[in-house]
Amino acid sequence: MTLQLVRRQVCELHAELVRYGLVVWTAGNVSARVPGEDLMVIKPSGVGYDELTPEAMVVCDLDGNLVAGDYAPSSDTAAHAYVYRHRPDVGGVVHTHSTYASAWAARGEPVPCVLTAMADEFGGEIPVGPFALIGGDDIGRGIVETLDGHRSPAVLMRNHGVFTIGRTAKAAVKAAVMTEDVARTVHLARAYGEPVPIDGKDVDALYDRYQNVYGQRSTTDGAIVR
Amino acid sequence: MTLQLVRRQVCELHAELVRYGLVVWTAGNVSARVPGEDLMVIKPSGVGYDELTPEAMVVCDLDGNLVAGDYAPSSDTAAHAYVYRHRPDVGGVVHTHSTYASAWAARGEPVPCVLTAMADEFGGEIPVGPFALIGGDDIGRGIVETLDGHRSPAVLMRNHGVFTIGRTAKAAVKAAVMTEDVARTVHLARAYGEPVPIDGKDVDALYDRYQNVYGQRSTTDGAIVR
Amino acid sequence: MTLQLVRRQVCELHAELVRYGLVVWTAGNVSARVPGEDLMVIKPSGVGYDELTPEAMVVCDLDGNLVAGDYAPSSDTAAHAYVYRHRPDVGGVVHTHSTYASAWAARGEPVPCVLTAMADEFGGEIPVGPFALIGGDDIGRGIVETLDGHRSPAVLMRNHGVFTIGRTAKAAVKAAVMTEDVARTVHLARAYGEPVPIDGKDVDALYDRYQNVYGQRSTTDGAIVR
Amino acid sequence: MTLQLVRRQVCELHAELVRYGLVVWTAGNVSARVPGEDLMVIKPSGVGYDELTPEAMVVCDLDGNLVAGDYAPSSDTAAHAYVYRHRPDVGGVVHTHSTYASAWAARGEPVPCVLTAMADEFGGEIPVGPFALIGGDDIGRGIVETLDGHRSPAVLMRNHGVFTIGRTAKAAVKAAVMTEDVARTVHLARAYGEPVPIDGKDVDALYDRYQNVYGQRSTTDGAIVR
Repeated sequence: MTLQLVRRQVCELHAELVRYGLVVWTAGNVSARVPGEDLMVIKPSGVGYDELTPEAMVVCDLDGNLVAGDYAPSSDTAAHAYVYRHRPDVGGVVHTHSTYASAWAARGEPVPCVLTAMADEFGGEIPVGPFALIGGDDIGRGIVETLDGHRSPAVLMRNHGVFTIGRTAKAAVKAAVMTEDVARTVHLARAYGEPVPIDGKDVDALYDRYQNVYGQRSTTDGAIVR
Repeated sequence: MTLQLVRRQVCELHAELVRYGLVVWTAGNVSARVPGEDLMVIKPSGVGYDELTPEAMVVCDLDGNLVAGDYAPSSDTAAHAYVYRHRPDVGGVVHTHSTYASAWAARGEPVPCVLTAMADEFGGEIPVGPFALIGGDDIGRGIVETLDGHRSPAVLMRNHGVFTIGRTAKAAVKAAVMTEDVARTVHLARAYGEPVPIDGKDVDALYDRYQNVYGQRSTTDGAIVR
Repeated sequence: MTLQLVRRQVCELHAELVRYGLVVWTAGNVSARVPGEDLMVIKPSGVGYDELTPEAMVVCDLDGNLVAGDYAPSSDTAAHAYVYRHRPDVGGVVHTHSTYASAWAARGEPVPCVLTAMADEFGGEIPVGPFALIGGDDIGRGIVETLDGHRSPAVLMRNHGVFTIGRTAKAAVKAAVMTEDVARTVHLARAYGEPVPIDGKDVDALYDRYQNVYGQRSTTDGAIVR
Repeated sequence: MTLQLVRRQVCELHAELVRYGLVVWTAGNVSARVPGEDLMVIKPSGVGYDELTPEAMVVCDLDGNLVAGDYAPSSDTAAHAYVYRHRPDVGGVVHTHSTYASAWAARGEPVPCVLTAMADEFGGEIPVGPFALIGGDDIGRGIVETLDGHRSPAVLMRNHGVFTIGRTAKAAVKAAVMTEDVARTVHLARAYGEPVPIDGKDVDALYDRYQNVYGQRSTTDGAIVR
């Protein structure tokens, strides 16, 4: 995949964040690893989603340094870069402040796995990572360390929002969409009593089936394989 | 109705699921029985709603085996097929994880009939079916057994989501839309005290009138007649 | 205003119900009195909002009998007709099952006036009318009797939904939009304690100003003047 | 910037209020100071957002008197004018009744700073101003006095809604969008326990960084600099 194709894909995937209502104004971003190179493509900082073009996307190395592009990269670039450096299986990273997921994050509470759709996509709870200030490696480290030991491609960073990973940027966007969807449903479910838990072995069966059977065999939209 | 017309109708009805916010990403599907044949048309698995075309729709027999189509059928095909085999009056089946309905399903709690619109469309509560794993006949059997003895064209499958049936696929889509609408309204109503119950005889009167008087006489949009 | 103009206006106003999310499928309707005649124009029963055209609108007399049109009139026609017969100042009537307003209606609880926007438009609480079955004069009578003694152009019919009135059909649509808006805001406000009441004299001052000063002098969009 | 450019910008920014769901019908407005002159451009009163054109925008002096335009100015003009007279650093003012923010306002409760996005944009809580009747200087004075001593560009006026300020009208619109976004997230977060507080020094660090590092250096979209 040429760099130009990656730029176009990253640009187009931001439109999915808007379509699914995961972002307002400029608060959320998608990045993709450039296959075969130590580079990533990411959103420029503070630019509105309507104004994004493939050319406006920014190319950085995996330390977050600007390599090519007319704009300064997203202020979340360091976190994305940390993930790419420490997780070679990850091809895409997404960050949002989507509403219901951020509400769980504000309480520092993981989303329990009480929906078959959660078992499918997350293989268990969506975990919570630490409070971390922007600007250095703290957020990235919090993401990687929290996801280690979970099947979930999503982590709720405390008082902050959501980071998701995927084998591709599209898979990371899907994980971000599903995170908000299940965070909302489980939030509502709890209003009148605790949701019924799903047995661990059923969660395992659902997760295994979804990761291995669901979709078309030629899909490029799979989740992280571990 | 030719097979091509059924494919187009099933394709177009998926757009209604999107329009009414009942689905995200690829999680939800519509099927229709092919009139006069032991066949059904259903969504391909894992394909986005934007990419659906009449040609992409999949034709299966009523055991869920692929008969025609370029894609693998929805992973929910076995459940749809079970319903068609056991309910000859059913011409369409819809499955969603719509938010409020799935929240009731996560608690395993039926939606009580406290709105005239519920009496009209559902003739009583929206019942809850069992927890069932995907892949065999368990979901289909849970749908059919739960709806037996209810006037509701919708069932909340525990920890999972909604299945609806109709004389036509359009009627099943309408039932899915109404399920989410009333699940949301009753969820909100309960926030500050229990909603006022509706007398059983008033529920009967409303249901009978709606099923027999509402709409245009030439409509093809009716609910299940029992 | 010719009958054709009224048909077009009523058709177009249904699109506002859709735009503001007050209706799903076919559940909601607008009517307008034909100026200078004992006639009303109303939505046909069970026809989707996308399929509405000025020609599809139905003309009825003020007893609800069909006068002109290719379709059967809305099943709510008797209620609209009752209002026109008993309230000569009313030029438009709207009915919806909008979500938050219907949630208050399901509890049979009026929306208290705790927002300046409510004082402006409703001049006090939004009252609750009785439970009434569709088909005769019960709903219409419930609307008229409940609104008598309130400044509100909206009434929540118990376990049912909203009816609004206006000097024009557009004003009634505006009242329906504002009803859902304030029903939602006050619902949310109560989640963490009671909203602060507004003094009666301040409600009066806000209502008087809004009804008499707000907007452009040539507006045709005013509320009911009593 | 010529007057015509300001009119166009103010017209276009109203579309952002609609896009982000902050307003219904005609209830919300944007104004901008005309650079280098004692003038402001504001929405006409009671005109729908679809009907707004640059030419329909109204020019007033900073006492709220009509200077140019075919329509009567917004009924909130006096409040906007008061802010411009007392805050020479302010170039734009926005007023909405956005749902979640107005729910906090109805309880008279500030939104606590429990999200990093709040620390970024507001530098602390979103404060509550007094109940004030429309028509004189009371609302404007309440806005200015409440924002004095807060870093927040937004104030919740009790029982009423939101006013935001910005160095530009676009920055004020952004603040209105972010106000509703964080008011909603924190509302939801509280449903199941108190959100985790953010340390004051972390709030300071986040605010300082966001105001000084975020975005592109050439941006005209900054917040108020004090």
